[in-house]
Amino acid sequence: MAKSKYEYVKLYETDDRLLPGCWIVVRLDGKGFTKFCELHEFEKPNDLRALCLMDEAAKAVVGEFQDIRMAFGESDEYSFVFSKSCELYGRRASKLVSLVASLFSAAYVRFWPAHLPDTPLAATPMFDGRAVLYPADSTLRDYLSWRQADTHINNLYNTCFWALVQSGKTTAEAHAELRGSLSDYKNELLFSRFGINYSTLPERFRKGSVVIRQRVTVQKQMPDGRTKQKERLEPVVLHCDIIRDDFWRQHPELLA
Amino acid sequence: MAKSKYEYVKLYETDDRLLPGCWIVVRLDGKGFTKFCELHEFEKPNDLRALCLMDEAAKAVVGEFQDIRMAFGESDEYSFVFSKSCELYGRRASKLVSLVASLFSAAYVRFWPAHLPDTPLAATPMFDGRAVLYPADSTLRDYLSWRQADTHINNLYNTCFWALVQSGKTTAEAHAELRGSLSDYKNELLFSRFGINYSTLPERFRKGSVVIRQRVTVQKQMPDGRTKQKERLEPVVLHCDIIRDDFWRQHPELLA
Amino acid sequence: MAKSKYEYVKLYETDDRLLPGCWIVVRLDGKGFTKFCELHEFEKPNDLRALCLMDEAAKAVVGEFQDIRMAFGESDEYSFVFSKSCELYGRRASKLVSLVASLFSAAYVRFWPAHLPDTPLAATPMFDGRAVLYPADSTLRDYLSWRQADTHINNLYNTCFWALVQSGKTTAEAHAELRGSLSDYKNELLFSRFGINYSTLPERFRKGSVVIRQRVTVQKQMPDGRTKQKERLEPVVLHCDIIRDDFWRQHPELLA
Amino acid sequence: MAKSKYEYVKLYETDDRLLPGCWIVVRLDGKGFTKFCELHEFEKPNDLRALCLMDEAAKAVVGEFQDIRMAFGESDEYSFVFSKSCELYGRRASKLVSLVASLFSAAYVRFWPAHLPDTPLAATPMFDGRAVLYPADSTLRDYLSWRQADTHINNLYNTCFWALVQSGKTTAEAHAELRGSLSDYKNELLFSRFGINYSTLPERFRKGSVVIRQRVTVQKQMPDGRTKQKERLEPVVLHCDIIRDDFWRQHPELLA
Repeated sequence: MAKSKYEYVKLYETDDRLLPGCWIVVRLDGKGFTKFCELHEFEKPNDLRALCLMDEAAKAVVGEFQDIRMAFGESDEYSFVFSKSCELYGRRASKLVSLVASLFSAAYVRFWPAHLPDTPLAATPMFDGRAVLYPADSTLRDYLSWRQADTHINNLYNTCFWALVQSGKTTAEAHAELRGSLSDYKNELLFSRFGINYSTLPERFRKGSVVIRQRVTVQKQMPDGRTKQKERLEPVVLHCDIIRDDFWRQHPELLA
Repeated sequence: MAKSKYEYVKLYETDDRLLPGCWIVVRLDGKGFTKFCELHEFEKPNDLRALCLMDEAAKAVVGEFQDIRMAFGESDEYSFVFSKSCELYGRRASKLVSLVASLFSAAYVRFWPAHLPDTPLAATPMFDGRAVLYPADSTLRDYLSWRQADTHINNLYNTCFWALVQSGKTTAEAHAELRGSLSDYKNELLFSRFGINYSTLPERFRKGSVVIRQRVTVQKQMPDGRTKQKERLEPVVLHCDIIRDDFWRQHPELLA
Repeated sequence: MAKSKYEYVKLYETDDRLLPGCWIVVRLDGKGFTKFCELHEFEKPNDLRALCLMDEAAKAVVGEFQDIRMAFGESDEYSFVFSKSCELYGRRASKLVSLVASLFSAAYVRFWPAHLPDTPLAATPMFDGRAVLYPADSTLRDYLSWRQADTHINNLYNTCFWALVQSGKTTAEAHAELRGSLSDYKNELLFSRFGINYSTLPERFRKGSVVIRQRVTVQKQMPDGRTKQKERLEPVVLHCDIIRDDFWRQHPELLA
Repeated sequence: MAKSKYEYVKLYETDDRLLPGCWIVVRLDGKGFTKFCELHEFEKPNDLRALCLMDEAAKAVVGEFQDIRMAFGESDEYSFVFSKSCELYGRRASKLVSLVASLFSAAYVRFWPAHLPDTPLAATPMFDGRAVLYPADSTLRDYLSWRQADTHINNLYNTCFWALVQSGKTTAEAHAELRGSLSDYKNELLFSRFGINYSTLPERFRKGSVVIRQRVTVQKQMPDGRTKQKERLEPVVLHCDIIRDDFWRQHPELLA
């Protein structure tokens, strides 16, 4: 059992350290979620329970890794932003990507019963991940703007699509009607045909989820029975615009 | 909401395709499992329920990805061998590593209650992953031999260690007694002091778990009520030597 | 002048070690050689002096790096094959590629006057390089076959093209006549119109250059004035088929 | 000669594009230059002719690649700074590194006779190269400061060392005397024992060479015989401090 005789195989491991001085974004995407959603009869266009479960799993990830500055999620994807100076696992890409994917997926299954108590889990969910580097703060913001613009575009489309389908159209007809249409057309369609004012739909659906850390006050039971108020940083989920400057002015610590 | 204005950020994604013509080994390792084991009071030196859960999660991974030829697991780690010609996700390292880590972790949580019904999950388990390439068949076999030799060495040590601890030694005393000792000494210690013949301990503990696909016969209920026998390939778990040639002669398809 | 204060910038250097156990091919290509050839009025379709200069530069590279097993060149490109077990500069890609490009280019300029004594160098030649890994011997042979097939295809085309141009056609007419034509047509064109039997043209033009090491006998002048015969391995240039098995059977050491 | 049958080998080429939005520094280092200097009897501690030749080769590189913002050289090394937005050869590392190494080396040999007319080139010089990315302007400046601080430290040491050797010490004695000594000690040694005021030595030796582009006025001969003054950007060599802010304030375009 001379283990040492085989240890040369470690030389085949390659170094995948990510360039220092850059923001690291780890983005997860659900694999085969169209089928997974159908199997569990998720509501269309948005299933609030499933979205809250995604947020819960994201909070578990943010809570675990102090180097994560913020996260942004929509539908079946979530992006986690590690700080420029993060030295976790020597910035090795495979370590960071696999751990985020692993913890998120495990938390998703663990917290499933709390969020979908009446729907037994009938398949194992799976998320793929990747790491992308952004050297400049402005490019990181553009990345996040890209994802939030995507949230809006997808949600407007899906809201129209499912309204049409629920009104009796086939899915093919609904797609045909929406193909190539502009935002204005879709807003008008929702309002005039279905009485839906898109801008009053829940911000969660229109803007996705932003996870940041906020100072929260927690009641702590002391040994002598009294309670004491303590403050600590905890991941919280917001649904707000992160494209405009306001958000970044209110949270200067995020890019600091 | 001009998404296109932000889409340039995709140019920052890098290509991490793995060299063609090489075996791809994706190895997962439990993160913080010493603490995780203590928290859930896993039996020492081996908790059969936890090992079976690892195997179950590994079977889920092997069942999902047809390009996996075999897997080998021990303790809180598992290695998955993708075929040389695997073209899954364009052989992108981050995709393969994250999906294996994600599915394994999600399955570990999903199947936990079936394997540890009396132990509620009290923390979210996490596995990190990495991909390593092996160009030659002989080097792949040396990799697997390395892991199996490691299983043996760790298990012999742990068996002695916990026998000493259960006999009343402190953990520091037990480590001190074993430090630098050879296999023969440890085998003799087990036999003379604790009446344990190491070579008769379960092969699962001494050799780890090997997952391969085997033709199994399944009973299929037909619409008319009759049952019909069908054959299909399914992941099975073996506990056998994979260092010597015998195993490879019996399973020529694995390296073919 | 506290150098140490700045030394952290070294952390930004990344590791580009090439996977062990694979053949490393470093291929150089002349940059802007169409213009470079015109500027120095190289003969068409092949300038023997320029080809010999390429071979001379390649021999300098092979002579410098013992880990190079062989090289293959044609036109303004040259491929150098480093052995699977090469550990030169820790197999760092940028080191290997830059040194081969540097030495080849420097030798090209250094030996220019000996090969083109009547043509002053009027511009600085430049070669780009890249490293490619081949895990299997058969794939390495296919790589070399690819280059030699390319030599043949290009040379047959160029021989026809320049024969047509020298017979009075414009370059556009010549290209038009050859576009999409098969080998047989081009062979026939050369023979019937220009009396050229393609298969009797010099092998150097049709097969390119193969650099291997061969045992050569050298006369060595001794201190006492007598001469002594000594044997040593020296790079030699062959012009022979390396696609078929014959060459590899005659030189089993190349892939050993 | 079915070339297409072999073309699959191209799939083994990997993508080595460098992250966008970062400064690219390509640094060349002379390989085996201690021996090369001895062989050609370069003057110690600095051979002005050899340093000018290095600068000449660097100017050839800067003149060729418009994306190079500046270069810094000392002794047998040279660093070339490509702009953050450089898209040359798709930012492929091996292309950039090999072309810079190739052109520099070829130019070094080409211009050798003009700089060392009495010293025939007796060996082929060689430079290795690497590419390093710097995301932030401040880190790029720290990189350049690191190299210029290195120039100073090496030159002060070498000036002392060769003064001691020329005064009759052996090289071992000279090294022994200088080992671990501070700058002040070395400055004092030069002044008190050899009458050398270090700060009055040529800036080229103390500060290295900085290549930037400057607007120069050139006389152009017109077809009618008259001459006309024209302005154009040309690489020029400076020997000045680039650690302090002054240089960067005077050349804001370099980091713009």
